[in-house]
Amino acid sequence: PSNAAAGQQGADFPRITLTDNVWAQRMLLDQLFGPSWQLRLVTGWSMGGMQALHWALVFPEKVQSILPFCCTARCWPHNFVFLEGVKAALQADSAWRGGRYTQAPERGLRAFGRAYAGWAYSQAFFRNEQWRELGFTSVDALLDYWELDHLEQDANDLLCVLATWQSADPSVLAGASSLKDALARLSARAIIMPSSTDLYFTVEDARHEASLMPNAELRVLESDWGHCAGGPGRSPEAMAQVFSAMHDLLAS
Amino acid sequence: PSNAAAGQQGADFPRITLTDNVWAQRMLLDQLFGPSWQLRLVTGWSMGGMQALHWALVFPEKVQSILPFCCTARCWPHNFVFLEGVKAALQADSAWRGGRYTQAPERGLRAFGRAYAGWAYSQAFFRNEQWRELGFTSVDALLDYWELDHLEQDANDLLCVLATWQSADPSVLAGASSLKDALARLSARAIIMPSSTDLYFTVEDARHEASLMPNAELRVLESDWGHCAGGPGRSPEAMAQVFSAMHDLLAS
Repeated sequence: PSNAAAGQQGADFPRITLTDNVWAQRMLLDQLFGPSWQLRLVTGWSMGGMQALHWALVFPEKVQSILPFCCTARCWPHNFVFLEGVKAALQADSAWRGGRYTQAPERGLRAFGRAYAGWAYSQAFFRNEQWRELGFTSVDALLDYWELDHLEQDANDLLCVLATWQSADPSVLAGASSLKDALARLSARAIIMPSSTDLYFTVEDARHEASLMPNAELRVLESDWGHCAGGPGRSPEAMAQVFSAMHDLLAS
Repeated sequence: PSNAAAGQQGADFPRITLTDNVWAQRMLLDQLFGPSWQLRLVTGWSMGGMQALHWALVFPEKVQSILPFCCTARCWPHNFVFLEGVKAALQADSAWRGGRYTQAPERGLRAFGRAYAGWAYSQAFFRNEQWRELGFTSVDALLDYWELDHLEQDANDLLCVLATWQSADPSVLAGASSLKDALARLSARAIIMPSSTDLYFTVEDARHEASLMPNAELRVLESDWGHCAGGPGRSPEAMAQVFSAMHDLLAS
């Protein structure tokens, strides 16, 4: 939304699905490499992982293996509800003006970041003060960082990403009659790697999805870092588990 | 704050601790029953349960047994952070004006309710559509209810309650040098009953606290209703477990 063409800027930006993103990426690869490329591994964290799953769902012939971590293939209802909460926090700022803001909704962006922080890590992460490993000296300092980090973002960009995330549902892919039907087509070798303490992309949901895929292994990422276990470079122990799974997929 | 005496209204209302509340209740009981009353059982859900714990901590000689459910004795850090998030959602509304609002911060109150809903139940509650048991026909209808329910509340009242909750820390009680020291004095017979799926008053924190009390049994309230498992009348299965524990404490 923030750098879109005229007529599609800001609040006028169209709704984008993960399938749209995957198609755009495919078109780019076609232009760069011609028609015969193959992907050995598609991987990603969070929405990047949802996208990896969509790669294998939308273009099964192009993808050999996937490693989606800290994510699920669809946005399950509790995940949807949590996102409604942080959205509401942003939109409570009257400067938001339905997306037609003339100055950044600063209070809303701060509230978004602050409300998000409780979801991003696990209860144990806070209990054990693991934020110290990120260089913070207090919980307040962590929350301040989350506020400032979101102040740098454009509100419409942020909400656009959330809408894509919330719309994720493989069962709406062409010709699939249900989630079960859609995931049964996922032939790529997959390691499905939810974080053991992720509060919104839960192990239970990931396990259920993996059970519907013909060639998937569920391998839980054991970590107290919650969703942020998969945050690149944040937790060395978690990263080691991710890299090990990548190695297994690429070696086979 | 909303019905306080002149000079203490709204944003000028003082910060209240759980100990203050327990003292006020004691003064009422003294006036009603003279000095020699005893409480067979003090029980409550959520902050009511925190208060039950504080009753036994502040007036051990007055309390025979306690049943705090879906709560902990202190506000653990993740719980504190989650509350910072819903507070920020309310305060993002410019009508809030630092508590000196001239009209209710409607958008903020709605955002508070909407952001809270994801925390109140468990992931499984939404996955299994257990909101149908509350008479809702969709997740949206549930979220609408949470918005409207909070619109009826005064913002300063709401934030006053949260500040009391966030300040809960037995280690600051007179003469206690640590949480361990404070909870070691809790001589009343106690059944500590966290909900198995509570996202902020966790079983882990309640178990740790119970292990520091000389006369407490941890009895997990098994339910998919999250924190709302303890909501009076909401889940018959959960209520049966609470009543059974009350019976055990009163029969002994």
